Amino acid sequence: MLNETHDPALRSWVPSTAADAADFPIQNLPFGRFVSPATGRPTLGVAIADAVLDLVAATAAGVLGGDAAEGVNACRDGWLNGLMALPARHASALRRDLSRALRADACIDKRLRACLFLRRGLRMLRPVDVRNFSDFYTSIHHARNCGRLRRPDNPVLPSFHAHPVAYHGRASTLSASGTAFHRPMGQFVRPGESMPVFEASQALDFECELGVYVGQGSALGERIALQDAPRHVFGFSLLNDWSARDLQVWESSPLGPFLSKSFVSTVGEWVVTAEAMAPFHVPAAPREEGVAPLLPCLDEAADRLQGGLSIDLEIRLRTAAMQRAGSAAMVLARPRFSDQYWTVGQMLAHQASNGCRLETGDLLGSGTVSGPTDDRLGCLLELTRAGQRSFMLPDGEERTYLEDGDEVVIAARSAAPGFVPIGFGACAGTVLPARR
Amino acid sequence: MLNETHDPALRSWVPSTAADAADFPIQNLPFGRFVSPATGRPTLGVAIADAVLDLVAATAAGVLGGDAAEGVNACRDGWLNGLMALPARHASALRRDLSRALRADACIDKRLRACLFLRRGLRMLRPVDVRNFSDFYTSIHHARNCGRLRRPDNPVLPSFHAHPVAYHGRASTLSASGTAFHRPMGQFVRPGESMPVFEASQALDFECELGVYVGQGSALGERIALQDAPRHVFGFSLLNDWSARDLQVWESSPLGPFLSKSFVSTVGEWVVTAEAMAPFHVPAAPREEGVAPLLPCLDEAADRLQGGLSIDLEIRLRTAAMQRAGSAAMVLARPRFSDQYWTVGQMLAHQASNGCRLETGDLLGSGTVSGPTDDRLGCLLELTRAGQRSFMLPDGEERTYLEDGDEVVIAARSAAPGFVPIGFGACAGTVLPARR
Repeated sequence: MLNETHDPALRSWVPSTAADAADFPIQNLPFGRFVSPATGRPTLGVAIADAVLDLVAATAAGVLGGDAAEGVNACRDGWLNGLMALPARHASALRRDLSRALRADACIDKRLRACLFLRRGLRMLRPVDVRNFSDFYTSIHHARNCGRLRRPDNPVLPSFHAHPVAYHGRASTLSASGTAFHRPMGQFVRPGESMPVFEASQALDFECELGVYVGQGSALGERIALQDAPRHVFGFSLLNDWSARDLQVWESSPLGPFLSKSFVSTVGEWVVTAEAMAPFHVPAAPREEGVAPLLPCLDEAADRLQGGLSIDLEIRLRTAAMQRAGSAAMVLARPRFSDQYWTVGQMLAHQASNGCRLETGDLLGSGTVSGPTDDRLGCLLELTRAGQRSFMLPDGEERTYLEDGDEVVIAARSAAPGFVPIGFGACAGTVLPARR
Repeated sequence: MLNETHDPALRSWVPSTAADAADFPIQNLPFGRFVSPATGRPTLGVAIADAVLDLVAATAAGVLGGDAAEGVNACRDGWLNGLMALPARHASALRRDLSRALRADACIDKRLRACLFLRRGLRMLRPVDVRNFSDFYTSIHHARNCGRLRRPDNPVLPSFHAHPVAYHGRASTLSASGTAFHRPMGQFVRPGESMPVFEASQALDFECELGVYVGQGSALGERIALQDAPRHVFGFSLLNDWSARDLQVWESSPLGPFLSKSFVSTVGEWVVTAEAMAPFHVPAAPREEGVAPLLPCLDEAADRLQGGLSIDLEIRLRTAAMQRAGSAAMVLARPRFSDQYWTVGQMLAHQASNGCRLETGDLLGSGTVSGPTDDRLGCLLELTRAGQRSFMLPDGEERTYLEDGDEVVIAARSAAPGFVPIGFGACAGTVLPARR
C-alpha cells in the first residue's frame, strides 16, 4: 500500500555522501542491528543516507511515541523479532514517524540527531533471531541449469511446475554479513575415483538469493491462503546460501542436501520492509508453455498481477590478491529477481499448505536467483558449467570455484518509474582456509 | 560412567503401583515438563515410580543445593535447556542428590514429599526448546526396504555405507506427546494418474525413532571428533516423525522431503539422560560385508565397542473404534535400537564434520528404527510394503496407512544383565480429520 512515506519528492536532512548512501534514501528506512559506538552493546537501527539511527536510544530519549515506541520497546531482547511479531501498524507507525522526523523540511530534533551514527565502520550483526530456515528453488533457469547436469534430456522435473520446491535449512549457522568462515571439510568423491575421501571441499560456491522474513506467524494445522500470504511477510534481505558442490553430489541421494549447505549461510545487513517494497511489485513471471495449469491453491489473480518483485542483484568477487593490490571487486553477474518462476506469496502458501507452523522471524530463501542469460546466473555451478569452464579475473587470476581469501559481496537495488530507487546494502562473506 | 545411582539394589520410598511405574525406577530419573497441579503453570520435573517431583518447587523449598540447585535455577525460562547447557556435573549432581533423597532408606524430607505429584493425569509438555532438528536415516533395514521401492536391484546406495545420511527437519512443528493433529493436506499424484491433486494425504504413516538431545553445543567452524561426541549428548527421547508418503513421493526430487514431514513430529514425554543409559551400551551393529572400510573420522574403537544402545521399542495402534469399544491397543512391531547401522556418536560427529554449529537443545532423530524381521519394522511403509499389503486389527478393522481417529503410541525399555531396566514413557499422537 503506497502512502506518504513513498513520496519521491521526499529528501532527508541527513547527509548523503557515502558510496552506498543511494541504497538508503528516506523512502527505504530498512532495519538492522549493530554494535552501538556509544555503549559498545548491540542495538537496533534504521539506515538513513550516511547514517544509522539507534532506535532504542531514540525511543529512550522520548523522540518516538505511540505505536512506534511500542514497536521498538517490544524488542527488549535486542532482536528485531519483537517488532516483527506485532500487528503491522507498529512497524508502519515507526516508518511514518521516522519519515516525518528525517525529512529535509522537518524541524530537527536534537535528541534524534544525538542518536545518529555514521554507518561507515559500524559492526553489523544479524538483525533477526531465526528459528526456522527453509530454502526454496524458485528459479526455473537455475533448476534447468542444475538439472541438466544430471538429466540432460529432462532437466526440469514435472514437480517443479506444480509447486515451489524447497528443503529445510539449518538455522544455527546463519551468520551476519561480513563473517569470514572456514572452507568446510566433508566427504566427496574425487573425479575419476569411486570411493569418497574426507577432505576440504574443492568446489565451494555461493548462491545469490533473496531472503523473506516472516512477521506474523501461523498456528499448527493452519494453512495460509495465497491471498493472505503478503500479510505474513515482514520484509526482505539478501542471502548467500554458500554451497559445497562436491559434498552435495555425494550426499544428496535420497534425502537432499545436508552438510553441503549447513556450514554457513550469510544474511544481509538490512531488512527492507514489505512496506518499503510496495512500489516495486511487478507481474509474476509467466508460466512456461505446455505445462499443466496451477492448482487453485497456488493461483490467484493478485499474485499473478503483482506477485513479482523488481530487484536487480549484483554479485561481486574480490580475491585476496585483488585486496592486496587494492583492486576493485569484479562483477560476476547481475541476476534479476523478476526472473523467478515462483512468487514470495506462493513460497509462503506452499510452506504452510500442510499446516506447518510459521514463527515470527522465520527465514524463507528464494533459492539461487538466475536468469536466462550468462550475465544473470546466480552461482558458480551455473557460471562455470559445474567447474568445466573457468573464467579470468582482471589481474590474470583464474577461477572455477572459490579459493581461500575470496570475498563475495551481494548487493541489490529496486527501481520503478516515478519512485526513488532503494537498495539492500551488502551481504558479504570471506572464505578462510579449511581447519584440518 | 557407572556410579552409585545405577546400583540395582536401590529402591525408592515412592510407591510403584501404576501400570507404567516400571519405566521409572530410581535408576532412571528422566526429565520432563508438565503443568503443575499446584500452580497451573509449566514446571520441570523428574519421574519417579508413580510420581513426578517438581524440581523448581523442590529447589525453591531448599531441598536441593549446590550444583544440583544451580542446575535447576539455570532453567529460569521454564525449559530444560538451561540445565542442558551447563557442564555435565550439574545434571550429575542433581541425579545423585535426587537418588539419595528418594531411596527407600533415606530420611524422608517432608518438603520434598510436598513437591511430588501423581504422574497419572498430568498434562505433559515439550521439555526442550529445540532450535535445530535434523533427522537421520541410520537403519540399513529401513534404507533397504525404502530403497527397494525405487531401485529394486540397488536398494542401498553406496553413500549409505560411507556416512549417516540425514536431512534438516522442521523445529517449529515438534509437538508434545499426546498432541492430536490434523491429517495434512498436500500435493500428490493419485495411483494411475500423472498430474497432482491438492488433497488430504491418503498415505499417512508414523516413523518410530529415537531422539538425541544435544547438551553442550559447538562453535561455528568446529568439528566434533567421534571420541568426543558422547560429551555433547545430554539424553534421549522417543520421537515419532509422522510422514505423508504420497506427498513425499511427489515432492522429494531433487531436494528431499519437505512438507511430507513438516506438518508435525511428536517428541516423547521424558528425556532419559545419557548418565541413566550408561548400563545399556552395547557394541555397534557390525558393518555389512563387502563394503568399503569406514573413513577414520567415523571409525573409533570405543564407538565400535559400546556405541550401540540396547533399547527395545514398541509401537501400538488404537483406532477410534477400539477406543470406543474399550479395547487394548494392538502392538504393531517391536523394533530394536541395537539394530541401527550407525551410532549416535557417528550421527553427531557427522553433523558437525563441516563445522556446523550445534546448539544446546538441538534434536537429532535416528530415523526409523527397523530390524531384519517383519516384527521389527518401524513404519507402515515397511510393514505394509508401501500400502500393498493390509493388516487386520483384532476387532476386524483393516489398515494399510493411518485413518482418522487412530492413536499411535511408541514406548521403549532398556535392559541389561545385572541392572534394573528403565523405560522412556510414551510418545503418543492422534490423527484428526484434515482441515479442508
